[in-house]
Amino acid sequence: MPKLSDRGIHMPESPIRKLVPFAEKAKAKGVEVIHLNIGQPDIKTPEIAIEAVKNINMPVIEYSHSAGNESYRKGLAEYYSKVSPGISFENILVTTGGSEALSFAFTACFNPGDEVIIPEPFYANYNGFAESTGVNVVPINSNIEEGFALPPIEDFEAAISEKTKGILICNPGNPTGYLYTQEELDKLKQIVEKHDLYLFADEVYREFCYDGREHISLLNLKGIEDRVLVVDSVSKRYSMCGVRIGALVCRNMDVINTIMKLAQARLSPPSLGQIASEAALKTPSTYFEEVSAEYVQRRDLLVDGLNEIEGVFCPKPGGAFYAVAKLPVEDSDDFCRWMLEEFEHKGQTIMMAPASGFYSTKGKGKQEVRLAYVLSQDKLKVALECLEIGIKEYQKVEATV
Amino acid sequence: MPKLSDRGIHMPESPIRKLVPFAEKAKAKGVEVIHLNIGQPDIKTPEIAIEAVKNINMPVIEYSHSAGNESYRKGLAEYYSKVSPGISFENILVTTGGSEALSFAFTACFNPGDEVIIPEPFYANYNGFAESTGVNVVPINSNIEEGFALPPIEDFEAAISEKTKGILICNPGNPTGYLYTQEELDKLKQIVEKHDLYLFADEVYREFCYDGREHISLLNLKGIEDRVLVVDSVSKRYSMCGVRIGALVCRNMDVINTIMKLAQARLSPPSLGQIASEAALKTPSTYFEEVSAEYVQRRDLLVDGLNEIEGVFCPKPGGAFYAVAKLPVEDSDDFCRWMLEEFEHKGQTIMMAPASGFYSTKGKGKQEVRLAYVLSQDKLKVALECLEIGIKEYQKVEATV
Repeated sequence: MPKLSDRGIHMPESPIRKLVPFAEKAKAKGVEVIHLNIGQPDIKTPEIAIEAVKNINMPVIEYSHSAGNESYRKGLAEYYSKVSPGISFENILVTTGGSEALSFAFTACFNPGDEVIIPEPFYANYNGFAESTGVNVVPINSNIEEGFALPPIEDFEAAISEKTKGILICNPGNPTGYLYTQEELDKLKQIVEKHDLYLFADEVYREFCYDGREHISLLNLKGIEDRVLVVDSVSKRYSMCGVRIGALVCRNMDVINTIMKLAQARLSPPSLGQIASEAALKTPSTYFEEVSAEYVQRRDLLVDGLNEIEGVFCPKPGGAFYAVAKLPVEDSDDFCRWMLEEFEHKGQTIMMAPASGFYSTKGKGKQEVRLAYVLSQDKLKVALECLEIGIKEYQKVEATV
Repeated sequence: MPKLSDRGIHMPESPIRKLVPFAEKAKAKGVEVIHLNIGQPDIKTPEIAIEAVKNINMPVIEYSHSAGNESYRKGLAEYYSKVSPGISFENILVTTGGSEALSFAFTACFNPGDEVIIPEPFYANYNGFAESTGVNVVPINSNIEEGFALPPIEDFEAAISEKTKGILICNPGNPTGYLYTQEELDKLKQIVEKHDLYLFADEVYREFCYDGREHISLLNLKGIEDRVLVVDSVSKRYSMCGVRIGALVCRNMDVINTIMKLAQARLSPPSLGQIASEAALKTPSTYFEEVSAEYVQRRDLLVDGLNEIEGVFCPKPGGAFYAVAKLPVEDSDDFCRWMLEEFEHKGQTIMMAPASGFYSTKGKGKQEVRLAYVLSQDKLKVALECLEIGIKEYQKVEATV
């Protein structure tokens, strides 16, 4: 038989989804699995978006323009002009989720073997997109003890080689929930100017910033407009992950025109998802206020609850709906699997994402897990109870091994 | 500024879509453009699929399983078991269009620099997927004079190098409409066995075979089951290109498991499109009979009409809904552009896809165009009239240059 490709073999499994078979087995045994592993919110999709889909009046579900429907792109231009004045629809390509936007960005900007610096822990699928496009991730470590703040500029300088071609951040961060300050973004600006790099930001959680803090988009960094590529998605903003609609926003038209060729090859982004997404632009601001208020309550409940468990430490995130917690266990991969395979409390257990998959450096994050607070407060309370009891039981097992 | 990637720079423009700006200008002048350039059928999407979308009852449009909804995959398994007995849902991954299925197949099976042999002319976007995944296309020529039959086995042998890792066919063919015979497929089987290769088929036009001929799927080639990857899509089958739902079908579970990791990285295929696609599995067979009958009439009208124009030659396709015609012009790229920029007849003109983009060998196909017979017979009649008059006028212009 011909061999599989090296990139196929080395492609990492998703730490968010790799434990799914164990969860399925637990469910088959009748155990209720509370999913803290995946950022699939239970928040309702705005009715205006659902109604638009239900009211489609199209005898043929046709391809859209490869860049997305122009009416939608113009609607997005209004949205982004509030984020950063002067974004035109020509600066926006509609993509199949933020995933495709990032794959396109890597493919268009990097040669195989080029390096991208990413503060870790980072969204695990960046490893997947890097592997499939032949790009090498160079991680620099941000620490749970410092709440995952941007690493010092010296760490970036030390990581830069002649192969370095860009820096990628996620802001607010997945998995950390960290929200970057203006000072931190200004530091990144200095570095990319000095070393002639691209600067990518995954800003899909832009709408979810808490405690009165405002999101600062990379699109607002003056003087490096041509270096900045922003990856976005409607998945979390409107709680409609399944429509698979994202966007690539960039003022550099050479980049846009190159990515447009990639977009043409795959013909068009999903038409039905674009209908939902265009309608969702009219979502009333009260929706976001309510959703944000709910996430803040969930965050406080979860994070405060985590820190009350003996041996657990979890910095309070400033945005998104994830938290990374350090647990008093040796190996969170094993612990997360054990929680699904061996544990139950009143017929329930929890599924978490082991944080090791969110680090590129081998051995990092072994005691950490990512938790998504996308479920009701009642569920989160049960989850905390399961976790507290689970840790105690697991520690006994650990001690006997 | 940092440079764009080499693959980004070399990424070909779509020959199907690259003339869009000229078409837009023509439309802005008030000229009606008849689109023969793109396989966007005017055939109605089955009502059962549209109704399923209109009747969605989901408060949250969630991610699906990365492999696609299990209920849909099980429905597909029934469908494919009619194509080839014994296909299980585990052999099927739901993808974002056939495009993603092919990108996944290339990424999982080929290292950058590996070679895939494709009989040309071939679907232009294969060049794009090859470029973006670092795979080298080695074309072998099939000729319009022989109706685009499979090139002789010696041509394959001559093209095989130590870098060759697979052969890709499109059956029935886009752009040629050619339908391969059992003998031709058996030849391919011999070659891939002898040289230890993968064999890929794009079978998205499977349902459209004419004149009583039956489609033979690669899934039916005995003894090479582990080498065969089939790319499929609902786009053309149910005339719903915009839902962006395809499939990768393969009996080799190592391949499936590797592609599953790529699928996990992009989270899930579109949920709304899957709802339409699952419902479409129940499309009555009368739908396909009517659609096929309509395509046969259109084919006969178009192809017979083309062959009546002086200097034009077009072999009659056995399937799909495309035809490649040789025109009495020096450079069909220039002619197609001229038809949009300079020509109109009674306020109308036609947009065609220059065939050069469907060849990998430089200089091939320069006199040829691809025409999609996806429009009403009335429109096709007008298109033929435009083409006949357009050729005559263009020849005068050519003569004076």
